[in-house]
Amino acid sequence: MENKKENFSEWYNEIVTISDLSDKRYPIKGMNVWRPYGWKIMKLIDNIIRNAVDKHSFDEVNFPVLISRGMLEVEFEHIRGFENEIYWVTKGGKEKLEEELALRPTSESAMYPMFSLWVRSHADLPLKIYQIVSVYRYETKHTRSFIRIREIHFFEAHTAHESYEDAEKQMDEYRIIWTEIADALCLPFLYDQRPEWDKFPGAMYTIAFDTVMPSGRSLQIGTIHQYGTNFSKNYDIKYLKEDGTFEYVHQTTFGMSERLLAAIIGIHGDDKGLILPPAIAPIQVVIVPIPGEGVERYAKDIETTLNGIGIRCHVDNRDNYTPGYKYNDWEMRGVPLRIEVGERELKEKTVTLAARNIRGKKTVQREKLVYEVPDMLDLVKEKITEDAKKTFNSLVVSASSLDDFKKEGLIKAFWCGSKECSDKIENETEKSALGFNLNNDETGKCIVCGKAGKLAIFSRSY
Amino acid sequence: MENKKENFSEWYNEIVTISDLSDKRYPIKGMNVWRPYGWKIMKLIDNIIRNAVDKHSFDEVNFPVLISRGMLEVEFEHIRGFENEIYWVTKGGKEKLEEELALRPTSESAMYPMFSLWVRSHADLPLKIYQIVSVYRYETKHTRSFIRIREIHFFEAHTAHESYEDAEKQMDEYRIIWTEIADALCLPFLYDQRPEWDKFPGAMYTIAFDTVMPSGRSLQIGTIHQYGTNFSKNYDIKYLKEDGTFEYVHQTTFGMSERLLAAIIGIHGDDKGLILPPAIAPIQVVIVPIPGEGVERYAKDIETTLNGIGIRCHVDNRDNYTPGYKYNDWEMRGVPLRIEVGERELKEKTVTLAARNIRGKKTVQREKLVYEVPDMLDLVKEKITEDAKKTFNSLVVSASSLDDFKKEGLIKAFWCGSKECSDKIENETEKSALGFNLNNDETGKCIVCGKAGKLAIFSRSY
Repeated sequence: MENKKENFSEWYNEIVTISDLSDKRYPIKGMNVWRPYGWKIMKLIDNIIRNAVDKHSFDEVNFPVLISRGMLEVEFEHIRGFENEIYWVTKGGKEKLEEELALRPTSESAMYPMFSLWVRSHADLPLKIYQIVSVYRYETKHTRSFIRIREIHFFEAHTAHESYEDAEKQMDEYRIIWTEIADALCLPFLYDQRPEWDKFPGAMYTIAFDTVMPSGRSLQIGTIHQYGTNFSKNYDIKYLKEDGTFEYVHQTTFGMSERLLAAIIGIHGDDKGLILPPAIAPIQVVIVPIPGEGVERYAKDIETTLNGIGIRCHVDNRDNYTPGYKYNDWEMRGVPLRIEVGERELKEKTVTLAARNIRGKKTVQREKLVYEVPDMLDLVKEKITEDAKKTFNSLVVSASSLDDFKKEGLIKAFWCGSKECSDKIENETEKSALGFNLNNDETGKCIVCGKAGKLAIFSRSY
Repeated sequence: MENKKENFSEWYNEIVTISDLSDKRYPIKGMNVWRPYGWKIMKLIDNIIRNAVDKHSFDEVNFPVLISRGMLEVEFEHIRGFENEIYWVTKGGKEKLEEELALRPTSESAMYPMFSLWVRSHADLPLKIYQIVSVYRYETKHTRSFIRIREIHFFEAHTAHESYEDAEKQMDEYRIIWTEIADALCLPFLYDQRPEWDKFPGAMYTIAFDTVMPSGRSLQIGTIHQYGTNFSKNYDIKYLKEDGTFEYVHQTTFGMSERLLAAIIGIHGDDKGLILPPAIAPIQVVIVPIPGEGVERYAKDIETTLNGIGIRCHVDNRDNYTPGYKYNDWEMRGVPLRIEVGERELKEKTVTLAARNIRGKKTVQREKLVYEVPDMLDLVKEKITEDAKKTFNSLVVSASSLDDFKKEGLIKAFWCGSKECSDKIENETEKSALGFNLNNDETGKCIVCGKAGKLAIFSRSY
C-alpha cells in the first residue's frame, strides 16, 4: 500500500478502491458507483444523522430532483451562486421541454414554494424538515472520490421560524446536533464563520465545520446558514400572527455530505487501510476461526451471542484463505475488533481479542465477552478520537508572521476581516480565509494591515 | 370523506392528501413531494424489502442517476422501449454537453458496463446486487400519486449467473422473496407471464405480480425478468470458466416501486381512511389519554414498556384536541391499535384496546400488555389479509363468453396466446391480456378462436 504520510493523495485513492468503497470507472467522469461496503458505511452515517436530528423534532421528507428555471430564478442572488454548475434537462423523449429543468444543486428553490403553501399561521411554526438525497454539480475542477464529485450524497435540513431570535436558537441547536454527530464519527473540527464573499448564496451568514486532512488541506464537512427573511420574502412564505398581521418567516439550513466519509477515511486511516469508528463499521467484530475440531461451531455460537446484544458481528469462514490473510483483509477494511478462536480457545473457553488500533492481544473468558466487547469498542473509539485530535492539533498552527503561512495546515492569525488583507495572504501563501474562528474570541492586530482584528483561520482547501 | 366503493378514484386522491402522504402541488406536474408520514411508510416498506433480499445474499449499491446516450444505445431493443419517456440532460452550466445524458429510466445500461469490469471468472458469480433509487419517466399520460408519476421511488435487483439454469433458480428465489414481502404487506396477487409484446424491453420473458384495485383495474406491483444472455452479449459481460473458455453470463432482474404503497392504500383502506399492516405502520400503537389525575404519566409509562419490546408506540398528548377527535385522526392515518387510558383504567391497572379494523373494545390488564399487544397486532394483520383476499376473490371473474369480460376486475379465460385474439378482446371489451396465469396450469379452448389455450388473465390496468 501507499504510504499515507508521504503520498496522502495516492494513499487516499488506493484505499477507496481496494476497500470496496467506490468505483470511479463509471463511464461518466466525476460520477462514481457506491460499492456495497462503502454504501453500508454511508447508510450508517446517515442513520447517525437521522437519529440526531429526529431527537430534535425534525421530520424527514423527500422532494423531487427537478426544479424549473422559474422556481430557481425567484431568488436571483441564490441562483447566481450556482448557475455555472447546474445540469439542465431540456428534452423529454424527443420533445423540447417548454421550460428547462435543473437537477437540484441544493433544494431551497424546490422546497420554499411548498413552504409558502404549508405555512399559514404561527401554529405551523417552527417547521423543521430534512432530506437525504443526491445533489448535482457540473464540476469543472479535478474530481476526487467523496470530496469533489458531480453527484453528491447530501443531507439538508431546512427550518422556518416566527422570529430572528427563534432562528438563532435553531443555529445553536444545529451545533448541539453536530457535536453529537462529530463525536460518533470521532472527527475534530473548528467552527469558522465564512467571510461575506464566501457565504452560502442568499444567506445572511454561514458557519462552517472545518476539519483538516493529513495533507494539511482543510475540508469543509458541514455548514449551517442563517437566512433571515432573504428567502421568505422572495418565495412569499409568511404566517398570520396572533395579532392578525402577517410576517415573513425566518429561515435556517444545515448541510452535510459524503465528505464526512472522506474525512473518516483520510483522518483515521493508516498504512494498513481504513480505521472505522465502531458506530459506522458495517462489521464491528470479525471472528476468524483457526481451523480445528469444533472451532467453527464455537465461532458461530459467539457470533450469535454478540449479534444478540446488538453488535454487528461476522464469522469469516471462507475456506480458501489463511487466518493471516483474513487478519490483513479485515484490518484493511477497518473492522474495529477481531476475535481469534482456535482449538486452544475452545478448550479453555476463551477467545483472543485484537483491536484494529491498539497494540497487543488480549485473552478473554467466553462468558465475559458480552461485557468485554462493548468495553473494547469504547476503547477503540476513544483511541481513534485521541489520535485524530493529536494529528489535528499538530496541523493547527499559530502564525506570528506571513512566513508562518508557509507551514502545512490550518493557520491561526489575527485578521481585520477585509478582502484586501485576505487577498494579500492568498496571493503570497496560497492560503485563503476560512473566516473568523468561533471557538475563540481572542482579539489582536491584523497580521497584514495591523488594524484591530479577530482570530481567523487560513488554509488551502479541498 | 369520499365513499371508497362509489368513487374509488376520488377517495384515493383524498386519502393521499389528508393523511399526509404526498403533496402534488409541487410546481412540476407529475412530480410529487413525499410528506413525512408517507415517507416514513415508504421507508418501512423499503426495509422489509432490504431484509428480504439481504437474507438471500444480495448487496445494496448505489449507481449514478445519469447514463450517457452511448451507454444506453448499446442495446438497441432495450432503449427503444424507453426512448419516448427519457429526460435528457443536454447542458452543464451554460455549456452544451458533448454527449447527452439520460436520467435513469431503469439501470441496466448504467450497471452492465460495470458488470463487464467486475465479472472476471466463475469465482465472481453469482453477482447479486440491488439499489433503491428514483427512476424517471417523461410520462405523457394522466398522472396519479404513487401509480403513474414522473419521478418514481424504485427497487431494482440485478443478478449475473454462470448458466441459464442458475438464472432460472434465481427466478424461483425471487418468488420466495416476493412471497415474504407480499405477506408483510397483506397483498393478494397473481403471477402472470406477460405476452411477448408486453415483456420488458430486452428480456427473454417477464413475470409480473398483479393485484387488483377496488375499482376493478389491475395494478402491476412487481416484475421479474429472465434476460438470458441478451444484455451480457451487448455489454460484453463474460467470465472465465474452469475449462479455460469464456462464456457470457445469464442475467435476471427484479423490480418494484412505490406502487406497493398505492396497493396498500387502495386495497386495505376504508371510508375512515388508511388501514396499515403493522409491519409498515410508523405508529403501531397510539395511546390516547382521557384527561385525569395521573393519566399522562400512566400513558407515558405504557409507551416506555411497549417501545421496550420493539413496538412503535406514541402517546398523543396534544391538549387542544378531544379524545374523540384523536380517535378519528389516528384511524384516518391507519394506526393498527389504539390504547385508551383514563382514571378508571389507571385505578384498575388496565387499558382499553381498540383495533383499527376489528369491531369492539377490549379491557386488558396493564401487566399483560406485552403479550396482548403483539397478539392483537397479529390479529389486525390477519384481518387485513383476510379482507383483502375477500375483495380480491370477488374481483377475479371466470369468463365463459366475451360478454363476461364486461364485468369489473381480473377476467380469467382460456386463450391461445395470439395477438389477434388478444386484440379482438381488447377492441370489444377494453381489457387487455396480462398474460398466462402461472398460479394455474389448466388448459382449454381459446375463448376467441377455439384453438388450444391456457388460462390467462385480462383486465383494464393502471
